[in-house]
Amino acid sequence: MPLTGYRIVDLTRIISGPFCSMLLADLGAEVVKIESPTDGDPLRAQGAMVEGFSWYFASYNRNKRSLTLDLRTPEGRGILERLIARSDALVENYRPGVLDKMGLSEARLRELNPGLIVGSISGFGRDGPYAERPAFDFIAQAMSGFMSTNGAADGPPLRTGIPLSDLIAGLYCALGVVGALLARERGGMGQQVSTSLVDGLVSFLSYMASNTLASGRPPERSGNDHPLVAPYGLFAASDGPIAIAPSNDSVYRKLLKALDLTRLEADERFRDNAARMRNREPLRAEIEAVTRTRSQAHWIERLNAGGVPCGPVLDLPDVFHDPQILHQEMVIEANHPAHGPVRMTGFPLKLSGTPCRLRRPPPDLGGDTDEILADLGFDAAQREGLRARGVV
Amino acid sequence: MPLTGYRIVDLTRIISGPFCSMLLADLGAEVVKIESPTDGDPLRAQGAMVEGFSWYFASYNRNKRSLTLDLRTPEGRGILERLIARSDALVENYRPGVLDKMGLSEARLRELNPGLIVGSISGFGRDGPYAERPAFDFIAQAMSGFMSTNGAADGPPLRTGIPLSDLIAGLYCALGVVGALLARERGGMGQQVSTSLVDGLVSFLSYMASNTLASGRPPERSGNDHPLVAPYGLFAASDGPIAIAPSNDSVYRKLLKALDLTRLEADERFRDNAARMRNREPLRAEIEAVTRTRSQAHWIERLNAGGVPCGPVLDLPDVFHDPQILHQEMVIEANHPAHGPVRMTGFPLKLSGTPCRLRRPPPDLGGDTDEILADLGFDAAQREGLRARGVV
Repeated sequence: MPLTGYRIVDLTRIISGPFCSMLLADLGAEVVKIESPTDGDPLRAQGAMVEGFSWYFASYNRNKRSLTLDLRTPEGRGILERLIARSDALVENYRPGVLDKMGLSEARLRELNPGLIVGSISGFGRDGPYAERPAFDFIAQAMSGFMSTNGAADGPPLRTGIPLSDLIAGLYCALGVVGALLARERGGMGQQVSTSLVDGLVSFLSYMASNTLASGRPPERSGNDHPLVAPYGLFAASDGPIAIAPSNDSVYRKLLKALDLTRLEADERFRDNAARMRNREPLRAEIEAVTRTRSQAHWIERLNAGGVPCGPVLDLPDVFHDPQILHQEMVIEANHPAHGPVRMTGFPLKLSGTPCRLRRPPPDLGGDTDEILADLGFDAAQREGLRARGVV
Repeated sequence: MPLTGYRIVDLTRIISGPFCSMLLADLGAEVVKIESPTDGDPLRAQGAMVEGFSWYFASYNRNKRSLTLDLRTPEGRGILERLIARSDALVENYRPGVLDKMGLSEARLRELNPGLIVGSISGFGRDGPYAERPAFDFIAQAMSGFMSTNGAADGPPLRTGIPLSDLIAGLYCALGVVGALLARERGGMGQQVSTSLVDGLVSFLSYMASNTLASGRPPERSGNDHPLVAPYGLFAASDGPIAIAPSNDSVYRKLLKALDLTRLEADERFRDNAARMRNREPLRAEIEAVTRTRSQAHWIERLNAGGVPCGPVLDLPDVFHDPQILHQEMVIEANHPAHGPVRMTGFPLKLSGTPCRLRRPPPDLGGDTDEILADLGFDAAQREGLRARGVV
């Protein structure tokens, strides 16, 4: 696998950081997740529990091992430093400055391991006027401008339910760490890789950003209609809505053909995209007069066969039973020795030669402490002592 | 830079693929964007134009060179094959099977260049029952389940305005290509890297996915309220709303302190998160009775100082004037020789040793054709002939 043999010290918790280190683990890295001996990653106590185990925690921590360490003790910090000295990368999502306060300044890290790559995720960036602010996905959604673009045309700015800024930042950070490993492999040095919740989400604003930068004007929220294309959106079939997205004139003509509406080709009201935007509602009425006569399944087959992008609006139970999702192995099951089968979403990255795979179930809190300490050279008596003193 | 010297043949267009190849270019790769001589990437004609140039196109194509090639001609395909033979990776976002029809089967690509990494983005994946369907971001939002999670509590499933599935897939594909380059650098082979709009978005469903997999029940849309935490959401200050996100009891107490509402600590209605969820509206009334008395700016400073994540809901013009965004250089300007200054969002990935930087402005259509052909060994007369025959 691409990262086989690389060792990652994982000081992350909650979502963005654990997602990043899981992406690295999925690509083959040996990730050691450091957790506090008392309660560990807060996600262990959140979300739906099955057999006493959080599937929310599980979904971000497969393929990792867990080592408990009390980092408030000198002994705990000493063990962390020994791990850092023999690792390739460290990943963390503390607030900027916290690593320094733990005694792990950039200088100290370089001293411990000159080749170390340090991947950091923060809310707003490592410096600047807001760097010290506490951060949270919802705040990043609000301050990146994302919320201002999400929502119905007549509704308020809307957060999206998934922790979008955390996930984007985690994915960027994984890209940065792998890029930095590649640079080091080609003769480069260790370095600091960082990204933030806000910056990542800003980089996802797409044409909303470029149009605003060009015009100075904010985009308008448009709900399920596209602000620049018509027809586009949800259309009623006899048994529910279908999403239809003809992106240009050529696909629009395919849509008319598939619906037996070719008479509309000559209709002046729908001559080109600009005319169709002006006459969105009459066009919707024409289309729905046809789509309402048959089922979603009928139209989805017919429109796809005719080259028109379309599909049902699936809720999550449907998604996880969808034949394509199952074919793509986007639901996988880890067999946890203590908690039984744990289901989670699969690997969106498919590598033909070195595929991502489930090598380890999500770890119990400190479940690999003994093995990792032994590997660091602590004998059984020493490990017992560390445990007795509450260090691990 | 991490990818300096790596050559990428870029057959992508529109959003997901160009975003992927731009991420590779931002990390230092030499990306040659192949475009049709007649009109090039459709994005060149979309979005806001400044001095005749699409800033939408610009935002996904900095740091690349453009080579026009008519791939319907044998000569055009021959030039493409010469480029492929001397490149490290090829990136494409055609529908599965199109590359084969162009004569570039996996076998042919391996013959041309055994070490080649091929990065592919499709709508639904390279195989399976929906593989051949035409795809589009909106359809991926609908079929991944994302739309079912986005929207107001009393509203319909809602698409989000940004082309989210395209961008996630582009970012995953970049991670995969860099991972495959690293694997090859460490003694591996060329390989196929692929991802899809739907699979990428499914991997972003977070606790909505894990809870559904655990319980079988779909999540409920909850608009700007969090389904599991209270208080949480938008609260009215005297001059507009502020987003406030106290994630746990400790931060909730900090919020009460910052608002001079510590008397509520003893209030049975708000004893713990479960009680606060039941009494969300009375708690909102208590909080807003205070927040309405002063401005957004006042509360944002006060709450941040007290350790409570909060912020304004910014629209995009505000975002691009925000001091933190500017400090992080999240708005950058390319100086295009023909079209003047072109503004776009910056680099969310910060690498201390090998930073991403703007090396080239977004290219004119075919603007680098001559240079690239010369580099491939075509002399001036040959280049003139290719141009006269409409091949380039």
